[in-house]
Amino acid sequence: MQTIRVDTPSAKYDVIAGSGLLETLAPRIQRALGRLPRRLFVLTSPEIWALWSHRAERSFPDTPVVLFLPSGERYKTLATVERLAREMVRAGGDRSSLLIAFGGGIVGDVGGFVAAAFLRGIPYVQVPTTFLAQVDSSIGGKVGVNLPEGKNLVGAFHQPRAVFADVETLGTLPGRELRAGLMESVKAGIIRDRALVRFMEEHADAILEREPRALERVIGASIRMKAGVVRADERESGLRMILNFGHTVGHALEQATRYKAMLHGEAVGWGMVAALAVARRRGTIAGAQMERLEKLIYRYGPLPRLKVSVARVMAATARDKKNVGGVRRFVLPIGIGDAGVVEDVTAAELDAAVKYMLVRSRVGAGTDGPRPTGRGAPS
Amino acid sequence: MQTIRVDTPSAKYDVIAGSGLLETLAPRIQRALGRLPRRLFVLTSPEIWALWSHRAERSFPDTPVVLFLPSGERYKTLATVERLAREMVRAGGDRSSLLIAFGGGIVGDVGGFVAAAFLRGIPYVQVPTTFLAQVDSSIGGKVGVNLPEGKNLVGAFHQPRAVFADVETLGTLPGRELRAGLMESVKAGIIRDRALVRFMEEHADAILEREPRALERVIGASIRMKAGVVRADERESGLRMILNFGHTVGHALEQATRYKAMLHGEAVGWGMVAALAVARRRGTIAGAQMERLEKLIYRYGPLPRLKVSVARVMAATARDKKNVGGVRRFVLPIGIGDAGVVEDVTAAELDAAVKYMLVRSRVGAGTDGPRPTGRGAPS
Repeated sequence: MQTIRVDTPSAKYDVIAGSGLLETLAPRIQRALGRLPRRLFVLTSPEIWALWSHRAERSFPDTPVVLFLPSGERYKTLATVERLAREMVRAGGDRSSLLIAFGGGIVGDVGGFVAAAFLRGIPYVQVPTTFLAQVDSSIGGKVGVNLPEGKNLVGAFHQPRAVFADVETLGTLPGRELRAGLMESVKAGIIRDRALVRFMEEHADAILEREPRALERVIGASIRMKAGVVRADERESGLRMILNFGHTVGHALEQATRYKAMLHGEAVGWGMVAALAVARRRGTIAGAQMERLEKLIYRYGPLPRLKVSVARVMAATARDKKNVGGVRRFVLPIGIGDAGVVEDVTAAELDAAVKYMLVRSRVGAGTDGPRPTGRGAPS
Repeated sequence: MQTIRVDTPSAKYDVIAGSGLLETLAPRIQRALGRLPRRLFVLTSPEIWALWSHRAERSFPDTPVVLFLPSGERYKTLATVERLAREMVRAGGDRSSLLIAFGGGIVGDVGGFVAAAFLRGIPYVQVPTTFLAQVDSSIGGKVGVNLPEGKNLVGAFHQPRAVFADVETLGTLPGRELRAGLMESVKAGIIRDRALVRFMEEHADAILEREPRALERVIGASIRMKAGVVRADERESGLRMILNFGHTVGHALEQATRYKAMLHGEAVGWGMVAALAVARRRGTIAGAQMERLEKLIYRYGPLPRLKVSVARVMAATARDKKNVGGVRRFVLPIGIGDAGVVEDVTAAELDAAVKYMLVRSRVGAGTDGPRPTGRGAPS
C-alpha cells in the first residue's frame, strides 16, 4: 500500500495505491471526508460495474445511486453532463452529495466535471480502474469533456477529495490498454525520473506480465511524479505543462483519426517519438539517448500503424490548447529525466518530426516489442 | 463614478459604476488586465448589441469577435454553452483570450460559465446593461445555466476580472425590467442596509423616474452590500446565503410558472413577501416592520398576479439548491437591515407563508404601486 500526498493551493488529498481498496471503500471515504455523505452517486460504466460492484457496494451502509456512462470517447460530451446532472437532481442530489467516479479515464474526466459543475461544485472521489487512470488522469484535478473540434476543450480544475487506486482491478484490463497506460509511465520517467526509465528498461517482462511488485513500483513512481508537478503548478501555468510531453502530436493523431484508430496512450507513444525527433534535431538529447528512449517506447508497444497524412496532423496541432496567443508551445526532453517547454518550434521542425514518426510507423518500428502474454493478452 | 473593490480569496477586482464607460471600454479592460488580450470575444444579445455596439466597439483597436445569445431563459442551457465554445475554438480562441459578457443577467451567467469552462477557464469581464445585472448578477462570480429541473443547477464560481456598469444603458431599459431589478436593491436594504431601505422609501419617485443621482445611489449601495458579503464568503458556505433572501419561494415561482409568467426580480419580490410572512410568524420581525417592508416591495411594483397552486410552489421549493442533506434552508430578515439563515422552517410554516403570498396577490396588493412614467414605461 502506498499513500501519496497531493498538496495544491486549492486542496490537499491522498492518493492510495494498493490492493483490497474496493472492499473497504466506504470507510476510506468516510476517513477522507470526515463523514460519509448522506447521498452518494457512483458514476461508472456498465462493464466496470459488472466486474467490481460486488466488492465495492457491500462496504456501504446504503446502496449508492448508480449512474452509468457507456464506454467510449463519443459519450464524453456536454450532453452527457446534462443527462447526468438531471438524473442527480431527480435522485435528490444536493450540495452535500458525493460523486464517486469509478472506472477509467473517461469516467473520471466526465465524473469530475459533473462534480465541478453540479450546483456549482460538489465533492468527488476517484476510483480509477485502468492503469492510465491510476497513474495519470485521476491525479491533479483536470476534468472535462470533448467538443467535436477537439478533446477536453471544456472543463474545470476540480480536485478530488481522495483517489483510491486498487491494483487488483488491473487484472482484467486488456493487454493493449495496459501497454497504452504504461506509455504515461514511460513519459513520467523521461521528463522527471531517470530511475523509473532504468527500472522500466530492466523489468519490462515483469511489468508486462503484471507482476504485482513491479506494477506497484511503476504506478507509485508515476503518481509521485505527477503529484510533485501538480503541487508546484496546479493550474498549468508553467511546470505542469511538461506533463504534456508527447501530447501535442498525440492529441493531433487522436483528432486526425477521430479517436477511433488508437488508444490515448498509443497516441502519446507516437507523440513522444515525434517530440524526441524535435529534441534530437535541436540537440537537447543526444543520438544515443534518442535511440534508448525510442527503444523503451517500442518495448511497451506494439504501437498501431499510422494511416494519416502529415497535413492532417499538422492542421490538428494548430488547435492545441497549449498554444497561447498564436505561439506553439512544445515540451522537449532535456537528456533523460528532465524536460522543458519551448515556444519557438517552427512548422518546418514539427513537419520534419511528424514525417519521421510516420516513417517509423511504416517500417513497423512500433511493433518491435514482444507480444505480452497472460490474462490480459490482446484478443 | 463609483469604484467598488471586490476582494475574494480567488480574485480581486473592481466594479466601476458610472457614465461613459462603454466609450472607454478597451482602455479600461487594458488597465484591469495589464494588457489587452489578442483575441477578444463579446457575448451579447442581438437587441443589446444593436443599441450599444457603436459606443463600445470604437474603443477597440481590432473589432472583437461577436457571439450572439438570443434573449430568454430558454437559451440558458448547456447546449448553448457547447455552441459558444465551439464557435470560440473555430475563431481561434485560446487560454489567453478574453470574453466580454455584454448584456443582462442571462448573458452574464452564460458568458461567465463559458469563460469558466472553456479550456478549463479563461478570463472574462462583465459589462452589465440591465439594472438587475448591474446590482446583482454581475457581482460575485456565480455563473451557470439551467436544467429543465431548475435554474442555475449547473455552473461554477468564476470571478470576473472587472465589472463595468454603465448607468446610461439603463435609459432604454423597459420600465418593468427596471422595477424588477430594483427588487434586488430592496432585498439588499432589508438584509444588510437600513439606510438604503429609508432612501428607497423616501426617493421612490426619483428612482423610478431614473433620476441619475438617485439611481447611482441605489446601484452603488446595492453593489457595496453584495461585494461585502461576497468578500466574507465567496463560495456560499455561510454568510453569502443571506443573499438568497426571497429566492427560495422566488425560484419556486419561476419554476412553477416555467420562467414565463414573470421576471426574476418580480418572483423575488413575491418571494420576499412569503419570507416576511415566515419571519413575522416567528417574531424575527415585528408587525409594523412587516407592513413597512411589504409596502416598500409593492411601491416598486406592480408585481404580477400569481396563478399557481400552493402545491406546485411547495413541490418546487423541495428541490432548492440551498437544501443540504434534506434540511430546508431559509433566509429570514431580523428586523430591518439584518438577516440570518435558519434550517428548521417546517413544511407547515412554508405552506402558510405561500398561502399568505397568494392571498396578497389575489387582492391585488402587488399592484398598489404607482405606474412609472417616462421613456421606459411598460408597453
